[in-house]
This record gives sequence, C-alpha cells and structure tokens, in this order.
Amino acid sequence: MDEIYALALELLGTAAFAVSGALTAVNKKMDVLGVMILGLTTATGGGIIRDLVLGYTPPAAFRNPIYSLVALLTSLIIFLPPVRKSINRHAPAFNNVLTVVDAVGLGVFTVIGIQATHSETNAHGVYLYLFVGVVTGVGGGVLRDIFAGEKPSIFVEHIYATASILGAAVCILLWEPAGRYIAMAAGLALVVLLRVLAAFNRWNLPKAE
Amino acid sequence: MDEIYALALELLGTAAFAVSGALTAVNKKMDVLGVMILGLTTATGGGIIRDLVLGYTPPAAFRNPIYSLVALLTSLIIFLPPVRKSINRHAPAFNNVLTVVDAVGLGVFTVIGIQATHSETNAHGVYLYLFVGVVTGVGGGVLRDIFAGEKPSIFVEHIYATASILGAAVCILLWEPAGRYIAMAAGLALVVLLRVLAAFNRWNLPKAE
Amino acid sequence: MDEIYALALELLGTAAFAVSGALTAVNKKMDVLGVMILGLTTATGGGIIRDLVLGYTPPAAFRNPIYSLVALLTSLIIFLPPVRKSINRHAPAFNNVLTVVDAVGLGVFTVIGIQATHSETNAHGVYLYLFVGVVTGVGGGVLRDIFAGEKPSIFVEHIYATASILGAAVCILLWEPAGRYIAMAAGLALVVLLRVLAAFNRWNLPKAE
Repeated sequence: MDEIYALALELLGTAAFAVSGALTAVNKKMDVLGVMILGLTTATGGGIIRDLVLGYTPPAAFRNPIYSLVALLTSLIIFLPPVRKSINRHAPAFNNVLTVVDAVGLGVFTVIGIQATHSETNAHGVYLYLFVGVVTGVGGGVLRDIFAGEKPSIFVEHIYATASILGAAVCILLWEPAGRYIAMAAGLALVVLLRVLAAFNRWNLPKAE
Repeated sequence: MDEIYALALELLGTAAFAVSGALTAVNKKMDVLGVMILGLTTATGGGIIRDLVLGYTPPAAFRNPIYSLVALLTSLIIFLPPVRKSINRHAPAFNNVLTVVDAVGLGVFTVIGIQATHSETNAHGVYLYLFVGVVTGVGGGVLRDIFAGEKPSIFVEHIYATASILGAAVCILLWEPAGRYIAMAAGLALVVLLRVLAAFNRWNLPKAE
Repeated sequence: MDEIYALALELLGTAAFAVSGALTAVNKKMDVLGVMILGLTTATGGGIIRDLVLGYTPPAAFRNPIYSLVALLTSLIIFLPPVRKSINRHAPAFNNVLTVVDAVGLGVFTVIGIQATHSETNAHGVYLYLFVGVVTGVGGGVLRDIFAGEKPSIFVEHIYATASILGAAVCILLWEPAGRYIAMAAGLALVVLLRVLAAFNRWNLPKAE
C-alpha cells in the first residue's frame, strides 16, 4: 500500500518534470527526439542521481520502465502540433503553468529523496536526509539546463533551491512526530507554495554587485 | 577467450571515441593536454557511467590503464602537426571520417553496455539492457559536447540516439536465439548503418516550430 | 590521530575550493544563494565524484555536514559587501590570490583522493591511485566551470591537470618508501608549485593551430 502511494507520487513528479524538460526543448526548436530526450533526462535525472548517491544500483529508472514511459509519453504530448501551437499562442499563461508544474516536480522529488534515504540507509542523521532530498529535487532541472546550454536555474531563479531546502527541513522535522504521510505532504506543499509565490512576486535575494 | 573479444571490441570503441573527442578539441584550438583530456573523456566516459549505473566500482577504466593508454595515444596522434595539417587540408573528407568513426564508437559502446549488464546483474528484464546500452553508447559523446561547450549532439544530430536505441533493441532481441556474438555484431552494424546513412542523407525528424 | 590530519587537510581543500567557486559566482553577479551553491558544489564536487567512483556511498559530504558548513560559511564570507568591495578594488591582486587558493584545493584533493583509494580498496595497482587522485583534484573545478557556463579550466589553463598528474605520481611513488605523510606533503607541494609557477609565468603547452 505504502509503495503504491510512493510510486504514484513519483510518477506525478516524473510527469511534471517531463513537461518542464519538453517545454524547454520546444522553446529551443529541438526535433521530436530532442524533446523526448530532454523530457526524459529532466524527469529521471534527479532519481538517478539519488540512487547513485545512496548506492542503490542499477537506479530505479533503469530497472522499471514505468518512469521512462511516463516521461516519454508526456514529452510526446507536449510535442504534438496542436499542443505546441496552443502553447505558442498563450505563451505568458503557459509560462505560469510551467512554473507551477516545475515547482510540483521540485517538491515531489525533494520529499521522495528523503523517503528513499529512509528506506535505503540506516540512519546517518538529519543532514544526510536534507542533502539527498535537495539533490534529488534540483538534480533533474540542473541536468535539463546543462543539456539545453543554459545556466542552471538554481543559480538564476530566486528561491528555487531555497524552497527545496525549507520543504526538506519541514519534512524531516515532521517525519517522526507526525508520520511520513503528513511530513511528505507538508514538505511538498511548502516547496510548491514558496517557489510559486517567489516566482509570481519576483522575490529577490541580495545580489553581488 | 570471450573476454579477449570483448576487450578488443571495447578498445576499438575507445579508439574511435578518442578520435572523435580529439578532433573536436583540435577544432576548438585546444592545446595538447586539452586534446588528450577531451579524447580521454569521450573515450572512457560512457564506460564509466555504465559501471557506476551497474554498481561496478571502481569502474573498469579506473582499474585497468589499457583504456586510457589507447585513448591518450590515439588523441596524441591526432594532435601531431602532420596529422592536423592533413586534417585541415581535407576538412570535408575528414568530417565524413569523423562521422563514421563516431558511429562505430556509438555502436560498440551500445552493445558493450548490453553485454556488461548481462555479466554484472541478474536479469532485470529487457528494459534495463536497453537503457544501459543507450546510456553507455551516448554517454561519452554527451560529456565531450558539454566539456567543449556545445549542445550535446544527441539533441542536434538527426538519428543519433535513435540509432543507438534501435541497435540496442536488435542486440537484445537476438541475444538468446542467435547467441551473443551474432547479437552484438548485428546491433553494432545496425547502429553504424543507421547513423551513417542518416548523417550522409541528412534524414530529419520532425522539428518543433 | 591519522583521521584528524586527513580531515584537517580535506577541510583546508574544501575552504580553498569554496573560495574559488564563490569568487567565480561573484564575478558572474550571482545572488547570495548562487554564490553559496557554486562554492558548495566546487568544494564538495571532487570528493563526491571520488566516493561514487570508489563505491563509498553515501559520499562523505552527504554523511557529515562539516564539509558543507565550511563551504557555505566560506562562500558567505566572500559574498559579504566589504569583502566583495575589497575584491573589486584590488582585482589583479585578488586574481593572484585566487590562483594560489585554487592550486591549494587542486593539490589537497589530488593527494586526498590517493589516500581515500588506499583506505577504500584493496590494491588495484598504481594506475587506480593516479586516476582517482586526478579526478578528485580536478572534479570540483570542472563542475564549477560547467555550472558557471564556462569551458572547464582543465582545457584552457596551462599546466592545470598536468600539475595534478605529476603531484599524484610523486605522492604514489613516495607512499611506500617515505610514508604517507611525506608522500602527501610532497605531492601537495609539487601540485601547488607547478600550478602557481605556470600561471604566473604563463607557461604554455603546444596548441593546435
């Protein structure tokens, strides 16, 4: 039962990040395979990095085709001419959708990373959970940006990694007292909320001048 | 006996990808060490990623110097002034050579990745073989392009990852019925054929507009 | 006792690479979080790659927060307005400081990589030590440059990887006859000396034309 919830959550994050990767590729005028590869890389990258870091090999995305299938199908849908046309026609609205969808991916992978650390390792303390959670959350997006030839959004977006860090902290703190479901839901909600609010209000961090 | 064939095949792929990495570096006017490092990275990158994914650590390229020796020597030969001059003088012809050589590297590492998965893991199903084969095949070239500051060729070349995917599929399907030698030869041949035909005929996939 | 020396050395390298990553981020006008993330990535990247290659998971930087704390605090200090202003005012002098600090990081991680290989693996021969040492030494800087959207300095700086390779060779050769402390000190000193001399004298390697 637990595993079904975890899988459903991870597939949601996979689809969200596939949308984000595929939209980036469409913006770069890539061909259909480029769109599918960038969607796949973004969607599975964070989980693969997480599994390598935890020593769980081969990574889940290599063992079970469901992650790739979801990522590839999602990317293909984004590439379909009517979808692309409608994206181009409503570009500003779609950028908002992309921000929300990407925030969901960020949040899902952050809390999934913490959960995987609980099941794969004997406790190594709070810090391990935090670092694995954040790396899992931001990993897919970093790969997407490097592959697309852009500066990783963790460096340019206000409150991107910060949202993942704070959500991870809340998830870790609530894990014991409130149970994993509430902890993961609260962590996920906080990441999405912070990230979306920051993006729409253009919250800034101090900059080097 | 088997291992000698596998090693010979892997060294062929290593040399082919070293040529491809070294030529890229020469085109970028890098110094002799840059040429050797890019040749080495391209040639060993796919195998290192494969071994990390399969949990085989330290990766073969770290245990056995033969891979690096072949890659470094090959790169050094490309850097020699008479070779470089002749490359510059016959640039179009050499681009064709590069395409073929790179296709051989792609094909070799694709089928070698499938073979390594057979020897390192208990069967996890067809999908694992496919994903590991393709990642091993394209991994070195992706690192080469990222290090050289270019968009990975899997996104811009027509039928690059596609060739690896189809060759991997044929190799996996033939493994049991036809035996590993025929399976690997058929997979390798298909990758090279598809990739070279696509490059010389400028076959295109539909593009996002 | 041994472990304390090793930890002190690794923290020195961590701080040095954090300075190098943070200064790169300040030059790119990143915000405070970008500066801290690039400092953290540069400082922990080499060690994380080393641990993944050696199959030591989760990597030390994930288990023990001390590395991140040192990296983040160091980066934060670089970001402080008075520090940044003084850096801008004395830019040429600071570039020299950056060169030396980065050389120290390169040297420390090179010899630390060799030491970790001794403790994590049964002997696999000289080559393994050399490759792991060099990858650990240059890994953090390669990640820094890729994340910052620049060509990795191992390709553009004269005598960067070369310094790491020669220092690693000396460290490996002296390990048995002279003992690990002298071996590591000699390797570290050689890396720093070679790298700094090469940078200040603009020593060149032959270039492809």
